[in-house]
Order: sequence, then structure tokens, then C-alpha cells
Amino acid sequence: MQALPKSVRWQDGVLYLLDQVRLPFDESVLECRDIQSVFDAIRALNVRGAPAIGIAAAYGLIVGLGTTVTVKELNERAEYLIAARPTAVNLTWAVNRMKCRALKQDKQNVNVADLEQEARLIHQEDIEACHAIGKFGLPFIVDHPNLLTHCNAGALAVSELGTALAPIYLANSQGSQLHVFVDETRPLLQGARLTSYELTRHGVPNTLITDNMAAHVMSLGKVDAVIVGSDRVASNGDVANKIGTLNLAVLCKHYEIPFYVACPLSTIDLDTVSGDEIEIEIRNDEEITHFNNQPISTPDIQVFNPAFDITPAALVTAIVTNSGVVTAPYHESIRRLMKSTG
Amino acid sequence: MQALPKSVRWQDGVLYLLDQVRLPFDESVLECRDIQSVFDAIRALNVRGAPAIGIAAAYGLIVGLGTTVTVKELNERAEYLIAARPTAVNLTWAVNRMKCRALKQDKQNVNVADLEQEARLIHQEDIEACHAIGKFGLPFIVDHPNLLTHCNAGALAVSELGTALAPIYLANSQGSQLHVFVDETRPLLQGARLTSYELTRHGVPNTLITDNMAAHVMSLGKVDAVIVGSDRVASNGDVANKIGTLNLAVLCKHYEIPFYVACPLSTIDLDTVSGDEIEIEIRNDEEITHFNNQPISTPDIQVFNPAFDITPAALVTAIVTNSGVVTAPYHESIRRLMKSTG
Repeated sequence: MQALPKSVRWQDGVLYLLDQVRLPFDESVLECRDIQSVFDAIRALNVRGAPAIGIAAAYGLIVGLGTTVTVKELNERAEYLIAARPTAVNLTWAVNRMKCRALKQDKQNVNVADLEQEARLIHQEDIEACHAIGKFGLPFIVDHPNLLTHCNAGALAVSELGTALAPIYLANSQGSQLHVFVDETRPLLQGARLTSYELTRHGVPNTLITDNMAAHVMSLGKVDAVIVGSDRVASNGDVANKIGTLNLAVLCKHYEIPFYVACPLSTIDLDTVSGDEIEIEIRNDEEITHFNNQPISTPDIQVFNPAFDITPAALVTAIVTNSGVVTAPYHESIRRLMKSTG
Repeated sequence: MQALPKSVRWQDGVLYLLDQVRLPFDESVLECRDIQSVFDAIRALNVRGAPAIGIAAAYGLIVGLGTTVTVKELNERAEYLIAARPTAVNLTWAVNRMKCRALKQDKQNVNVADLEQEARLIHQEDIEACHAIGKFGLPFIVDHPNLLTHCNAGALAVSELGTALAPIYLANSQGSQLHVFVDETRPLLQGARLTSYELTRHGVPNTLITDNMAAHVMSLGKVDAVIVGSDRVASNGDVANKIGTLNLAVLCKHYEIPFYVACPLSTIDLDTVSGDEIEIEIRNDEEITHFNNQPISTPDIQVFNPAFDITPAALVTAIVTNSGVVTAPYHESIRRLMKSTG
């Protein structure tokens, strides 16, 4: 098993981001020395995955600063970064946590070294969260060794290990005989490019399919469970995740297959009452109509390109977090979990 | 409204096939003067769509022949052509019909002009069948003007007008306010390349989406009905069609949206008892892993590329044929329809 390059690394005041747009063909690393380059990397999906975006944003808030920063400038930088991707709650969460740390200093000129500590803490906590998700999700994977996943909720999406893929890696390292169908995940092919890349590199048997094959492989009895990550979970258990997730959840209901969501607690947003409140990011037509700048569809047609969809809580078998597993009724179980973890 | 180039044209002993691999970027036409080039065109999807393949195969059986052909050679040619694509029943159906015509001559040296008449008849009957499908499907479209379709079951897939798209063109020409979501249809993008091309050219408002967005647009209430074509219908009403069709049928059930299949009677195969008996063509990995010879996924991974899936009859609201509409129980309704049409 080959160690994966880290998606986010911070060293000597420079933020290093594994360029996920160029994977798996090229393992190149972006060096971000100013906030603009971090904004661009988040916007252009060079760094992606809700937790990885959060970590990158925390460091991005302070990258390129001197020893102090004014509260006003810090707030401007925070607003700027949050605008890069509206749906990912971890982005706002991480930036707000950094702002809280600044407020605690109770000064006009905030100490940047202190903020850096907070960013490192966010990073370290994500590492621990992923390992905890792996531990809590492990029994589901052991019981359902034939899996299907969508998009990339693996090591590349977080600090390390992954969310949805964390229990898969754990089960695999403990000798479970697993197989994972990997949805290619149009339009940006995160499954084909990233998930198949990291699963293969970790020695987890996997098979790439196009997104529209999921029903077929389920009908053949080749899928015991689906497990995906999430970009935001509402307080009622509705799940925002990569477009195509809802498709899978409906199929799971039809074929009586468990549908699991894995995410850190920071992805659960108690301020969002239900999925109806979640703004769905609409991305450029060209992501669908072109590949590598070459047209792949009829020119000058109307296109709809939502980046996410909302899976209603009723279709979710369980949500695996770093603090434990919650099941329906989510309104209560999520609140209980949040309370128990402070 | 611009007339579409015909997918199949026969003139002076030459078979002209609109090259659907190069559409919509290039409206080039393949000239087939021998059976090998017809086989290649069917295999490589230059001509595609069950009825268009059948028509091409009928002409392909005689292309390049002199005034007579031996029964032995004709049988060899028939076998050769049928092997080009195993799932499309129209291919076998058209070739067998040509063989029957030959058998009726009751001679060792079969008259090719007589066979040519049969091929022209198959072609003409398909034109009439498509117009009849349009007529029988029209009320469903008028009642459900917000549609979603998969792959290409339009004019390009047949002689003219289409199967699933026939009633849409008819309703549009009669002034119905329609909108069609077009699944791009991975891996070969027949929706993005062909359906959006012909709908746009005929002035039917349409929006391209990736296949995994269907559940999302349904959940938004933007789809009144799904209509697709078919490559083979079993005698119990199970439907073989482009991979991804089953996905849509399951979603339709969940969202209580009608799911219509449109096809000529020749697509219904009474010898196939159920979908379980239908051989699913498995195509090359490269269709998924590459685009225009460029890799788009992790190298050297396992891939599964079934070209079709089977939608169980229980998920099909109605099958619209050129002889009328059948609904469940299909076992009876199909038999009744077949009987009434001789």
C-alpha cells in the first residue's frame, strides 16, 4: 500500500494543495502564498471535499499575513473566502471558527500566530474525526462488503483516510473481502479520477461504472450497501451531497439496500432546518458540454448543471459521524448527539 | 424547422449511413458498398438505434451483390451481420425477414432484386410505424408536456421521426408547449450529441443534463413523464434499453411519474419470455475510461460497461407501438395486440 499525497499541507506559512483537477494523471502540488490563490483553488476545485475545503480555508485566512492583522481585514478576508463555494458548510464553519479565535484575543490587531494554532487545530481535529468515522462505520462495511460509492469522499476530500471511504480502508486493512463500485460522477468525474485512484492505490478492489449503471448493478444483486459523504446535513437529517446522490438513495429504497452517509459533525448544520433551505450551487455549462476544452455535445443548447442534490432524511439509513451513528428520527438523534458532544 | 439528414438511405445499390459517431460536429455520410463496411458501421455505432440498425442490415445483406446470390452465401452473410450487435432484436428480425423472402423464391440462386424489394418494404414500413407511434403516443405527451428522455430514440435511430421522440415532434408541431430534459447518456453521449441535436433542430425546447441529475429534476417537479425507446421488449413486457433506463424507471416509480416506452412491434420478441433471457452486450472499457482517445479516469482499473439494462414490466406505465398502446398485464395485452395485427 502506497501512502497517498496529502490533499492539504501547511508548512512554513505556505499552503500546499494537491491539485485534484490534474489527478490521477499528474500528482502536482499547488503552492498558495496568498489568499487569492486559495480562493481560486477552492473555486476551481483544485482542492475539494467539504472537510479539505474547510482546512484549506482556515489556512487561507492567514496565508501571506505578517505577525498581525486588523479585525476589519480579517473579516474582509473571511467574507471573500466564503464566497468561493456557497454550498459547503465546512468552509463557513472553519472561517467562522477562525474569526471566533480572533475575537477571543479582544484586540484591534490580531496575533496571526495564535490564528495559525487554530488552523492547525482544525486540521488535527479533522484527522481524528476521520479515524473516528472509520471506527464507527466499520461494522456496516463488514456486514455489507459489496459497496457502491459516489463522487470522492476519501482521503483526498479530507485531511487523511476519508469520510465514506474511512471505514472501507479500515475494513480492508483488517482483511475484509471488499468490492466497491465507483460511480464515475459526471460531470467532473471525481469517481473515475479520484476515488478509483485512491482505492486502487490502497489495494481495495473496485470497478468503475458510469452513474447510470447503478440500478443495473443493484438489480444484479452486486451491491449490499451504498455509502457516500456529505457537503451539508440539515438538522432534520436531509443530506446535501454531490449531484447523483439522490438518484442512489431512491434506488437503494427500491432495492432495499442500506444507504449510509458518513461525515464529521462539522458538516451537520443545526441552523439549517431542512434541505429546502440549502442553496444549490449551479455551475458552468461547460463542465457538461465540454471535456478538456473540446465540445462533447450539441453546440448552443440549454444546460442545467446543479452541483448538488438534496437527499431527504427518509431515504437515509444512518449517518455515521466522528461522535457516533445517528438514525431516524434524525431531528431528535442529531440534537442528542450534538448535545452529548458539547 | 430544418429537415434532418436521414440516418439510412439506399440509392443505386449503395447504402448511405449518416455517421452518428461524428454528429453533431460533422454531418458526414458513410458510403457502404460492401457487407463488411455495413458490419463495421453497425458494430462501431455509426448507425445506431434498433430500427435503423434493422433497415441498414436488410440493405447490408444485399449490398455489393450481383443479380443473384446462393442460399448458402446469403445465410453466411446473415450470420455475419447478426453478430455485429447481439442485443438489438431488430437486427435479427430484419435479417430473418430477408431470409424468408429468399426462401419463398424456392431457388438455389436467389434473385437479389426481389430481396431489394423486401429491404425497401422494411424501410417503408418503419416510416409508417414511426408515424403511427407518434399518433398513438400523442395524447400522453399533450397531457405530460414536461418530459425527460434517455439516449436517442429519435429520427436518427429510425427511418424518420423517431419512436420515443415521434409523439414529441407531433405534439410540438401541433403547438403544445413542451420541454424535454435530455439525459446526456454516458458513456457514448447519445443524448448530448444526438437527441439535443435533433430536438434543437426541430425547435423543441430542451435542456441537457447529466444522467445522475434525473432524480434532482424530478424532485423539483420539473418532469411530468419519462419516455424512452427500446432495443427489445420481452413477451412479459420487460424492456431492454440503453443502460440507465432502469435507473429512470425506478425514479419514476418513486416520484409517481409515468414511464412510457415507445417502439415498433418488431421490437417485441415473443420468443423472449422475460428480460432474464436477454443477453446484455458488454462493450469496451475504453468507452468509459477514454474520451477522444484521451484518458479520463485512473489508468489500469477494472471497468464494467454493459450497454443495456432490463426494466421490469412492473415499472412500465405503457408501451406505445405502431399498432396501439399496451398496458399491464403485458403478458396478455402484448399477445392480444400481436394477434390483432396478424
